[in-house]
Amino acid sequence: MSTKRHWEDFVPGAVEIYGPRLVTREEIVAFAAEFDPQPMHLDEAAASATLLGGLAASGWHSCCLLMRMLADGILLGAAGMGAPGVDQVRWLKPLRPGTQIRLRATVLEMRASTSRAERGFVKFLFELLDEQDAVLIDLTCSQMIVRREPGAPT
Amino acid sequence: MSTKRHWEDFVPGAVEIYGPRLVTREEIVAFAAEFDPQPMHLDEAAASATLLGGLAASGWHSCCLLMRMLADGILLGAAGMGAPGVDQVRWLKPLRPGTQIRLRATVLEMRASTSRAERGFVKFLFELLDEQDAVLIDLTCSQMIVRREPGAPT
Repeated sequence: MSTKRHWEDFVPGAVEIYGPRLVTREEIVAFAAEFDPQPMHLDEAAASATLLGGLAASGWHSCCLLMRMLADGILLGAAGMGAPGVDQVRWLKPLRPGTQIRLRATVLEMRASTSRAERGFVKFLFELLDEQDAVLIDLTCSQMIVRREPGAPT
Repeated sequence: MSTKRHWEDFVPGAVEIYGPRLVTREEIVAFAAEFDPQPMHLDEAAASATLLGGLAASGWHSCCLLMRMLADGILLGAAGMGAPGVDQVRWLKPLRPGTQIRLRATVLEMRASTSRAERGFVKFLFELLDEQDAVLIDLTCSQMIVRREPGAPT
């Protein structure tokens, strides 16, 4: 039997923390050059004249770093089937070069699929934290995960 | 005076299309290896056994490709100030290797900031399209943009 985590292994209210990971200036600039080449993500001088007040990662870069920690921390060890989307992304504080980030994952809600007995949904709140536990970005997202006991009463 | 587009230059209901851009297998796999190393984004055989039914880009990769077309098409030519977040992201259809994608940007709503006379918000619907105009992902997002005439009646 698979040792991967199944839908039944997640518990509403559970909180897990993953990381840390150091985010470098080099990766911030490289990501921005490829996907979000706005001056505030590429150049200190240009960035200091913007609302960010200095060089900071693209909000999409923060999402991608969160995704990587989510994959390593949860999904690669779970019978995951993907996600239909993301409910809301909030870019709350700039992600600066040299920050040690962590991912906080909170299980908000669980429900069995009504149409497919073999799967369930786990709705997570994901928060990217800095060293002082400030939330840099947050997003909510429902992951589809295989049920160990398809169709069992919930 | 700046020739960049300001808040007043956007019109509710306006639709613009950007691209195309060819998405290769190589970039799909490279992105996944860095940010979303789930087998369905890395390997054809593993992907064919999943809900995606074959290799497809990470949903976050689709978002980043959309962002790049948004930057090139609109933001780098506008007096943009950033965005506070994203309202909702829906991953509707898999993005396959070899697809020519385009971005469709629709202005949903405009409002002046009530607290800052120099800025306004433009709420967009962004859709990533394939060659047949099928929507692969969509998201809504409010961009902050500098007003040409701060505080003028709207």
